[in-house]
Amino acid sequence: MADQNRQWLLTSRPQGQPKTSDFEWRVDDVPSIEDGQYLVRVLYAAMDPAIRGWMDPSGNYMDPIPLGSPVRSVVLGRVVESKNPDYPEGMIVSGLGAWSDYVVGFPGMLGPVPAEWGHDFTTYLHPLGAVGATAYYGLFEVAEYKDGENLLVSGAAGGVGSLVGQMGKIKGSKVVGIAGGPEKCAWLTDELGFDAAIDYRATEDLSAAIAEHFPDGVDVYFENVGGPMLEAAIDNLGQKARIAICGMISQYNESDNPPPGPHNLWRLLVTRSRMEGLLVSDYMHRAMDGYAEMNEWIKSGQLKFSVDVREGLENAIDTFNLLFTGAHDGKLLLKIGDE
Amino acid sequence: MADQNRQWLLTSRPQGQPKTSDFEWRVDDVPSIEDGQYLVRVLYAAMDPAIRGWMDPSGNYMDPIPLGSPVRSVVLGRVVESKNPDYPEGMIVSGLGAWSDYVVGFPGMLGPVPAEWGHDFTTYLHPLGAVGATAYYGLFEVAEYKDGENLLVSGAAGGVGSLVGQMGKIKGSKVVGIAGGPEKCAWLTDELGFDAAIDYRATEDLSAAIAEHFPDGVDVYFENVGGPMLEAAIDNLGQKARIAICGMISQYNESDNPPPGPHNLWRLLVTRSRMEGLLVSDYMHRAMDGYAEMNEWIKSGQLKFSVDVREGLENAIDTFNLLFTGAHDGKLLLKIGDE
Repeated sequence: MADQNRQWLLTSRPQGQPKTSDFEWRVDDVPSIEDGQYLVRVLYAAMDPAIRGWMDPSGNYMDPIPLGSPVRSVVLGRVVESKNPDYPEGMIVSGLGAWSDYVVGFPGMLGPVPAEWGHDFTTYLHPLGAVGATAYYGLFEVAEYKDGENLLVSGAAGGVGSLVGQMGKIKGSKVVGIAGGPEKCAWLTDELGFDAAIDYRATEDLSAAIAEHFPDGVDVYFENVGGPMLEAAIDNLGQKARIAICGMISQYNESDNPPPGPHNLWRLLVTRSRMEGLLVSDYMHRAMDGYAEMNEWIKSGQLKFSVDVREGLENAIDTFNLLFTGAHDGKLLLKIGDE
Repeated sequence: MADQNRQWLLTSRPQGQPKTSDFEWRVDDVPSIEDGQYLVRVLYAAMDPAIRGWMDPSGNYMDPIPLGSPVRSVVLGRVVESKNPDYPEGMIVSGLGAWSDYVVGFPGMLGPVPAEWGHDFTTYLHPLGAVGATAYYGLFEVAEYKDGENLLVSGAAGGVGSLVGQMGKIKGSKVVGIAGGPEKCAWLTDELGFDAAIDYRATEDLSAAIAEHFPDGVDVYFENVGGPMLEAAIDNLGQKARIAICGMISQYNESDNPPPGPHNLWRLLVTRSRMEGLLVSDYMHRAMDGYAEMNEWIKSGQLKFSVDVREGLENAIDTFNLLFTGAHDGKLLLKIGDE
């Protein structure tokens, strides 16, 4: 147990990509807890694009991170001290924490993970955590995916996208992913079983490339990127298609000067298609149902995933910015404490 | 009964707003009919923005009008000769016809209107026709409107928009319409009972104007226009809001150079909102249910409407173009034959 609590505080609202000067590195004593609380040693933090939104004054879909406060992040950790019988010492918990060595938990802030399933802890921050729940409920509920439908996924080599595509394959779909670079594309087709992958960096006409794979149109488009990819996908929607908007990472650093939206929204009208935003928090109260099904797929080898674990709380900001350069391989996690 | 059949044929694909030179005025004999067919004297044609889409090579959501064929249009007319017992002489019918004095009907092409309800014939081309069905099913089914929700309508002084707003008032909503010009806005508030109307021509910051009326956000946005209005509405969406896309008239003449789409689609994500296209043809098989309810509202004076009837088939093109200049007052109809 570390005897200090290191943390990254947000001290100014980033313009575009966050810089180290937007943060303060502070070292405090390990916090003490009161009745009903529990102390969590943070082991891993998930580097999620949503964090960038929480740094903005609007906060997007949560309260903004207050200036002077630690950077909010989904974490996994171990209860190391407890004044709450529901959170006994040694329990592995996950939920909203911070870029810090320790967080003080209150009831409902973090929840136990099914550690008894015996996976690596990182698994509970990817398929068996909010990432997996986003993929599962986004595909099956928001997009109302039906077995065998034509499925297109952007950000396909990312955490959510890679799971979505594999779920489509498990359910009998033709699945095409959009990703950046030949290595990611090869991973999608060779390792994960996608039918095809489109390397957007090497593709001049994205819309035509999609049309080649789906001449009859796309039934479900799972959107992780936004911008030109969304427009290309809308070009290729079939009748009564559904777009689940899970993320628009291309716009997160551009809130002052966002790129123009798709020119072709009228196609939603002529195809009677639907586009809907997805927040996983709407589904977390029943996420264990999805986790249980995904757990079976993981055990049978049908659902694969990749984590890219970087080390050291001191590297949080540089690690976080890898999200926006694409220079990571699988779900990006930061290891903060030893298991 | 006229002894000639005058018609407007589409002879070239219009660029932007249609010009007379895109059409041919042809006068033929009154067509003869075969067994199973019926001859309809066209009395009124509805001037619908959708017709513009059918003139394009893509046709948008129907087959394009073939070059050399009469311009497709929703019409109302009287059966004047019949070789089909389901369509007796004298029956008043409506459905897809053409800009012509006569159309030859086949089973299912046109259908009887509930003339026994005793309304002016024009009523069956507005609230008790496809326009009314679009408003009714768009609001209650596509937008899943619930009583009392905050309702924003663009193109509010148009055929569909004016009905949508009144239905919201009947169901207890706060309703704000967006329209062009003080006369239209006054009509919405003074005659139709809208809570407020925003004159987009006199409003610099449309988004702020909407926010003033709906500080808690818009629950349902009924979209008839597209372009900057859509972006302003998206700025003001509440949580779990729904956008029914009924039309995007601002884009119909711009298919070669469409205006950019909304910059703020990420707000669909953070509000978990939904945007969905609406085609009334999906609902026509059960439209009589909606008509029956609207008939009661019309009889009780709760649902008002305005038709702008222009005269003469020869004026079809100029009349049609009034749709895009806004220089009409209520649902635009062209009277082609005497009742």
